[in-house]
Amino acid sequence: MTNTQVTLFQIDNYGPWTVTPEPRREADLQTLQSRLFADISQYVGARDGYVFFTRFDNMIAVTNGLDVTDHELLQESISNRYPVTVSIGVATGRTPIQALSDATTLVQDAGSAQDDGRREILDGRIVDDEFRAPDDVQIAHFDVVDATGEYTDELNAFDSFIEIEQGYAALMRYMRRAHDSLSFFVGGDNVIAVCPDLDRTAYEDAVDHVESAVEVELRVGVGRGETAHEAGMSAKHELEHCRADGRRLSLGWE
Amino acid sequence: MTNTQVTLFQIDNYGPWTVTPEPRREADLQTLQSRLFADISQYVGARDGYVFFTRFDNMIAVTNGLDVTDHELLQESISNRYPVTVSIGVATGRTPIQALSDATTLVQDAGSAQDDGRREILDGRIVDDEFRAPDDVQIAHFDVVDATGEYTDELNAFDSFIEIEQGYAALMRYMRRAHDSLSFFVGGDNVIAVCPDLDRTAYEDAVDHVESAVEVELRVGVGRGETAHEAGMSAKHELEHCRADGRRLSLGWE
Amino acid sequence: MTNTQVTLFQIDNYGPWTVTPEPRREADLQTLQSRLFADISQYVGARDGYVFFTRFDNMIAVTNGLDVTDHELLQESISNRYPVTVSIGVATGRTPIQALSDATTLVQDAGSAQDDGRREILDGRIVDDEFRAPDDVQIAHFDVVDATGEYTDELNAFDSFIEIEQGYAALMRYMRRAHDSLSFFVGGDNVIAVCPDLDRTAYEDAVDHVESAVEVELRVGVGRGETAHEAGMSAKHELEHCRADGRRLSLGWE
Amino acid sequence: MTNTQVTLFQIDNYGPWTVTPEPRREADLQTLQSRLFADISQYVGARDGYVFFTRFDNMIAVTNGLDVTDHELLQESISNRYPVTVSIGVATGRTPIQALSDATTLVQDAGSAQDDGRREILDGRIVDDEFRAPDDVQIAHFDVVDATGEYTDELNAFDSFIEIEQGYAALMRYMRRAHDSLSFFVGGDNVIAVCPDLDRTAYEDAVDHVESAVEVELRVGVGRGETAHEAGMSAKHELEHCRADGRRLSLGWE
Repeated sequence: MTNTQVTLFQIDNYGPWTVTPEPRREADLQTLQSRLFADISQYVGARDGYVFFTRFDNMIAVTNGLDVTDHELLQESISNRYPVTVSIGVATGRTPIQALSDATTLVQDAGSAQDDGRREILDGRIVDDEFRAPDDVQIAHFDVVDATGEYTDELNAFDSFIEIEQGYAALMRYMRRAHDSLSFFVGGDNVIAVCPDLDRTAYEDAVDHVESAVEVELRVGVGRGETAHEAGMSAKHELEHCRADGRRLSLGWE
Repeated sequence: MTNTQVTLFQIDNYGPWTVTPEPRREADLQTLQSRLFADISQYVGARDGYVFFTRFDNMIAVTNGLDVTDHELLQESISNRYPVTVSIGVATGRTPIQALSDATTLVQDAGSAQDDGRREILDGRIVDDEFRAPDDVQIAHFDVVDATGEYTDELNAFDSFIEIEQGYAALMRYMRRAHDSLSFFVGGDNVIAVCPDLDRTAYEDAVDHVESAVEVELRVGVGRGETAHEAGMSAKHELEHCRADGRRLSLGWE
Repeated sequence: MTNTQVTLFQIDNYGPWTVTPEPRREADLQTLQSRLFADISQYVGARDGYVFFTRFDNMIAVTNGLDVTDHELLQESISNRYPVTVSIGVATGRTPIQALSDATTLVQDAGSAQDDGRREILDGRIVDDEFRAPDDVQIAHFDVVDATGEYTDELNAFDSFIEIEQGYAALMRYMRRAHDSLSFFVGGDNVIAVCPDLDRTAYEDAVDHVESAVEVELRVGVGRGETAHEAGMSAKHELEHCRADGRRLSLGWE
Repeated sequence: MTNTQVTLFQIDNYGPWTVTPEPRREADLQTLQSRLFADISQYVGARDGYVFFTRFDNMIAVTNGLDVTDHELLQESISNRYPVTVSIGVATGRTPIQALSDATTLVQDAGSAQDDGRREILDGRIVDDEFRAPDDVQIAHFDVVDATGEYTDELNAFDSFIEIEQGYAALMRYMRRAHDSLSFFVGGDNVIAVCPDLDRTAYEDAVDHVESAVEVELRVGVGRGETAHEAGMSAKHELEHCRADGRRLSLGWE
């Protein structure tokens, strides 16, 4: 059974900072946001976790394998190198949405995202080493069937993007409501979902739902592991099988 | 009348590169994508343009103020510092979608995004200095009314994200179909749209549409300028007026 | 005749910042310093200038081609993305040392490097476009003859480094005292010097001096141009001639 | 007794890469070198090690606390995100120079730095956890007495730099020859040395030597620890004592 450890990173007082004393250059905000995300991705990724850019001022990560000290060091390093600081909530749960919900509450209870007095909260609980198991994390890696042929090489780049975005919006809502999962667009035509224990049928239903709702054809590879990297790399390999032989679904443990 | 110069950046042969010889670590792909975007944002932004991460392997920019040599140097710099290269199409048009469409065609005509032989295309046309005007670019900066109070401090971080994503998906499609505009989520609860000459009514209709379609309340500041930075900074200031006094729309030229 | 435009970038109040409230992690300071330098290198380099990391809290650049507004934007962008700010002095002169000296004075006159009240000074003069000429900048690119064979593949990495460092220390002092030039180690076994109008003899004497003083054998390519990039790229090509045929000196204009 | 674990990072085939097919823009090389260093600094630093930029194509690190798998992951991550790869040698020794020497030999034995066929060597030995001790690493942090008052606020920025560089060149050679230590300039007026077990007298002699040889007045804080970060942070605190009360030497364990 899954036991997902989820971390929420929230930049402290970001909204006000971006417009004080005057609105800051958009290109610089985009650069700061992206590079902060990239740094967190390197740090968390080196410990076999995954982080998703999400809203950039709020970033969600799967951090099985990182302990509290790991989070503390990351928080300190960010405060040494950026003009902003981050607050962090960590929680675990049988479903990703439960863990994420608890992680959010930890940060919210300490103060508003725009509370000038709230800085560098660090609170939560991790999955202790003794309780970790090979099926703690389940990752599904979706992409669009023949995106290059159907969209990228055919439509203008924004209409391609609309199609992929509509597919993502439909999938994210369905996976959350029907399956307590967290889904993230990760570039290209790829969406990575963090899931509880789901079976073949759940994924088939999700793919069917998106096709009916927005006419976007997805396929998916799914993997399990002790960490997001382990589960996610398995999922990538399963997706390669789909790409190779036309399957729409491939599970790493079957 | 607007005369938007749009650039499409497309990483050459990226899909295959990410899985050859084996799928690469996701955290590294995220880092590479984000830092490439950040570098392009700095380069384009320093010349008063705006670039949007879009799909990361395809990035759309408003580049009024950059000439062909500027694009060429950026392309060369990327090839010196990254393990991938980019192809570039530049075009201009009375509407952003027209310019983006032509820019896309220039790249597509040179070869597929996954054509191993297509590398570092650079093609297109810019707005010559003598033809530039103070209303070449129109930028609308949307955000969600009281996002912090309604979402960030209330819902879990993923449900907040779903709300904002649904709002974005609805807005992007409407603005493209009804108004030939290109809309991009830029973090937080913010969406920046690149528009042709639109009037008050067009923006009011867009805000109403999104509220009806997905129950997300937007407000918007709009600006004009010779460059994206000029138009966008004006839009940011107009949005500050909305934040201050409850208005749902403020135009920089009224 | 050369007319070098030199910019001094000095981080404001850096010493105190690094130890307040407590000494900060060294790895984070190294990261911040290097990335700030990298950003300045991209910005200045894209305008055909060169910047040298020097002491990291003080960085020296050759900025023929950048005007005051260019410096202002760079300063603003840094303040938007880093936890520190920089003060900037720009000056021009017949010799690089004269320009650098005047640039330094502009910053010093505004306040101490550790004066908590001094922030974001921007002062100085540039070479106006109408006065620019193809021989404004002279760059000499030195490297060590057969460094790989003599040092890198033979000695341990620190003893190789000592040899190169001793060679650099001797060259930098000689070029400054005898020839009013500024010399900078740029990695590997390479030193780039910013020079006034020097002839063949001056470079031969410098190479002889270093060989006598510390037994390090240098060779050098020299170029001229309107910008550091133009002069420096010419110097690189001349150095390639030296590498190819055993010459110890090659001038781009002979 | 110290038991320093030293890692040598050497970019594969870098010299040829920088000039193939043509010499690359210097500003881009500087950016790539600095950002690669910054990434290694973050990775190694997060595991409580220290890395020094040294020659940029060859970087030396103190890596007590990192195992072989840690080095392997770093090497893989670099290959995923940069246009170059690195070879790595790791070794341990009673003195830093011995460890560095063995680490270098591991890389040299596998092939020349400019051997096009040598890529991503990873070889060596670490200090196993069971053998680690609180005095494994000794770090000395030197700076120049009143550098700001004597140099930065008084001389032009290059003459300040010459003074500091001459001080560094003298110190690095003395510490290597007399004390088997590795010394690195780390910015500002700071030099960090990695030492074996040295006592008070050794440091007093080093400071005296530099004052006699080049008239640069140094002071030094020294610390011990299981890792470079632990020893180095202790050294920083000792140096703060020197700054506060005028002492020229302060040892963390007395």
